[in-house]
Amino acid sequence: MNEKLWGDFEGRMRDLRELRSAASLLGWDQETCLPPRASEARGRQVAVLEAVIHERLCDPRLADTIAALAGEALPPDRAAMVRQLSREAERARKLPEAWVRALARAQSAGLAAWRQAREAHRFDLFAPALGKLLALRREQADLLGHGGVRYDALLDIYEPGARVAALQPLFARLSTELRRLAEMIAGSGRRTPAIEGRFEVARQETFCRELVTAMGFDLTAGRLDRSAHPFTLGVHPTDVRLTNRYREDDPRPAIFGAIHECGHGLYEQGFAPVIAGTNLADAPSFGLHESQSRLWENLVGRSLPFWRAFFPGLQKLFPEALGNLAVEEFHAAVNGVGHSPVRVEADEVTYNLHIALRLALEAAMIAGDLEPAELPGAWNETSRRLLGFSPRDDVEGVLQDIHWAWGDVGYFPSYTLGNLYAAILLDAAEREIPNLWERVSHGELLPLREWLRRKIHAPGRQRDTEETVRAATGEGLSERPFLAYLWAKYGELYGLARGR
Amino acid sequence: MNEKLWGDFEGRMRDLRELRSAASLLGWDQETCLPPRASEARGRQVAVLEAVIHERLCDPRLADTIAALAGEALPPDRAAMVRQLSREAERARKLPEAWVRALARAQSAGLAAWRQAREAHRFDLFAPALGKLLALRREQADLLGHGGVRYDALLDIYEPGARVAALQPLFARLSTELRRLAEMIAGSGRRTPAIEGRFEVARQETFCRELVTAMGFDLTAGRLDRSAHPFTLGVHPTDVRLTNRYREDDPRPAIFGAIHECGHGLYEQGFAPVIAGTNLADAPSFGLHESQSRLWENLVGRSLPFWRAFFPGLQKLFPEALGNLAVEEFHAAVNGVGHSPVRVEADEVTYNLHIALRLALEAAMIAGDLEPAELPGAWNETSRRLLGFSPRDDVEGVLQDIHWAWGDVGYFPSYTLGNLYAAILLDAAEREIPNLWERVSHGELLPLREWLRRKIHAPGRQRDTEETVRAATGEGLSERPFLAYLWAKYGELYGLARGR
Repeated sequence: MNEKLWGDFEGRMRDLRELRSAASLLGWDQETCLPPRASEARGRQVAVLEAVIHERLCDPRLADTIAALAGEALPPDRAAMVRQLSREAERARKLPEAWVRALARAQSAGLAAWRQAREAHRFDLFAPALGKLLALRREQADLLGHGGVRYDALLDIYEPGARVAALQPLFARLSTELRRLAEMIAGSGRRTPAIEGRFEVARQETFCRELVTAMGFDLTAGRLDRSAHPFTLGVHPTDVRLTNRYREDDPRPAIFGAIHECGHGLYEQGFAPVIAGTNLADAPSFGLHESQSRLWENLVGRSLPFWRAFFPGLQKLFPEALGNLAVEEFHAAVNGVGHSPVRVEADEVTYNLHIALRLALEAAMIAGDLEPAELPGAWNETSRRLLGFSPRDDVEGVLQDIHWAWGDVGYFPSYTLGNLYAAILLDAAEREIPNLWERVSHGELLPLREWLRRKIHAPGRQRDTEETVRAATGEGLSERPFLAYLWAKYGELYGLARGR
Repeated sequence: MNEKLWGDFEGRMRDLRELRSAASLLGWDQETCLPPRASEARGRQVAVLEAVIHERLCDPRLADTIAALAGEALPPDRAAMVRQLSREAERARKLPEAWVRALARAQSAGLAAWRQAREAHRFDLFAPALGKLLALRREQADLLGHGGVRYDALLDIYEPGARVAALQPLFARLSTELRRLAEMIAGSGRRTPAIEGRFEVARQETFCRELVTAMGFDLTAGRLDRSAHPFTLGVHPTDVRLTNRYREDDPRPAIFGAIHECGHGLYEQGFAPVIAGTNLADAPSFGLHESQSRLWENLVGRSLPFWRAFFPGLQKLFPEALGNLAVEEFHAAVNGVGHSPVRVEADEVTYNLHIALRLALEAAMIAGDLEPAELPGAWNETSRRLLGFSPRDDVEGVLQDIHWAWGDVGYFPSYTLGNLYAAILLDAAEREIPNLWERVSHGELLPLREWLRRKIHAPGRQRDTEETVRAATGEGLSERPFLAYLWAKYGELYGLARGR
């Protein structure tokens, strides 16, 4: 092992990491603190930092060092660091600066056009900008390289190794079963109790702090702030920032927002100290990161044992609105299944149908089989087929998400993969943690956090997602555990038998 | 004019500016938002950013561009930009990257050790970190070069062109006169009215927001937050951040903290748009920057006309504590001259004696005549000689300021220079703004802000301090206007005649 060579590599890798941390902190500040008049200046600051990062990734001396390390026998963690940075550097070199600038311009224009289109209820105002973004993404796919399917090159950014040919049958099986379950729930005639009243925001925030603390989130190595859209930023395992939003008329968005973001936050706080500050301190895929937020938000946070532990505290904060509600009623109220046309407000059962819709459409658009002008029609038709209804209008439908406005293509499937991995992981945790649910019902969430930390968080991306999950659970990707979980839970809530 | 050459220079200059903005935002976040466990990681992030800045300043292509521009006929603003960056680049080339990184690390460690030492009331916990910082500053002075006096090289960073040999006689004259005035005040037997009661922090903050708004600070291009030690950071003229601290038993520290920081903030918001984002958007010296905070805090903020305008509002917020106080009594209460051992809470008369104390000690430490371990003893002895008393303990004494904790040496004299320039500037403003004090007594502070913006803020550092002040006032640096101001004000308040 040539330690001088390694030292050169490690210095470059760590510097890049710190620069990324700085850039991401500027982004956090932009969403939480930035004075209104400062956004133009902030844009320039971030752009310069991104340029420095790009320059360093493309530095020929980095390429030389990586090439020289190919001849060295590296221990697995170092090999993973080299593999990771090599992949990033290669990707950066393949994307010329002209393309990067063109994308930034198209994203700005896309966002503006999307806002206008929503305002005016006119999709046609957005279509040309979307066409431009799709063209740039196709160009990106060709620059990065692929085996004939452009969408795979984009998917690979979020889910390394994933292929649309493997995802489509998975989504088809999943959708069929979810449609069936949703229809049976609708046919059951049962309705969930309403939650009504005034919920003081400061008290909601107090409760959210209690929840994330109970989940084992370390507030001396993190924060919980407010922003327009909740998000989590891991600047470093000792500096993990959750944001949340609050509604006075309903505490559920804030509660499940906090639990969801905290699931991400525990991942970011949980990287082993030895990989903190290296490029392994990250999830191997967006889907695995999302599995942590989904596991906590839905599989744990919407369970009856969880609320047996925490509902009394919530009642004490809001005695007028919740004092007379039984915990079983509250549990039902946080597990309603309905017909939301909006993905981010959808329940667990129909959520993945929303994703199936987006996957079908964006794969077709990137393949060139669907033109932007035809998108609203295709959206409404696919929505009817998958969800059983079509949206009232384009704002509620095809224009609802910001992702395409910003030119993000290939990201949606990660949400569903997160749900599927969450169920696989929780099955294994149930097998390995004695009396897991009884402990949850006493508010003891740390055993689960410890299990996840050891199995998933600590190793970061030393291994890919498939290997990480298999090492933790013995299982590979499958829709079955997730479906079994849904049938068990909603079967009981709505008095259904899976049958068939 | 070779526009391609200029474009290259300007791009480099602006990128450096954006990188500095990013680094300073990380510093602001450290003082206001950073989770306790994250300070080590933050230290590394800042260090890498500083290294990038250093690398770019030392880039030979920048030196070549600057050399090539020497042959061009540049308009004055561009010439000033080149002069400024040339000076910075020269300084940076003299400081090796290893030194820069070591300083950043030592600063982070120094700050942490200082906090621990204050907590534990143990100076010895801070002494080793201070020793390390002083060694780095001596090394810096030698690297930068000096004419035999290391302290001059450090002073020059804050006050370009200043020399300790010139400052010491100025401080000696000033100290003698201030000691005399302070003793006469003590001998006058007059006591200032006490301010007592409970002052809810949220209301104090409301009042501070009203004050800074009345001073013309734009809160859509800035913020007012809390931190342990008040400070101001200008990320950009559209993003200027003030911080303040609050005491429940006395509103004065917060009020004058806010006015002081706002004085700095108006400078940062006041740079002409054409120089925003360039290296001219800064004061030519720390002393001139400080003149703005001092002018507002003391010469305006502690004046009777100011409180004629704003005392009724303060009374309304705190009717129990202040309802029965006359404005003249409140004016006297904010102009008490006493024996504060804490510089930032000292009155105008003894304040500069605190600075004389620090100048004497830090000059001795840098010269190697005083070791960190001997510092508390020397502090107490010098305090007795200059101020007439010594502090109760080290937290109240040698550990009170953050500057040495952060390794800032050579900075303290700027505070006194600020006081002297403030008096010179206000004399000129009184001559040029019709009915200035009557307008102040009606709460009209904008005419003064406009005069300062035009004369001092807008040009930034196109000219040096001496030239800027002379262009604004026709006067050069002198202690006389400041002393005349003090004798007039305190003579009246305490019934004294300057005599002699």
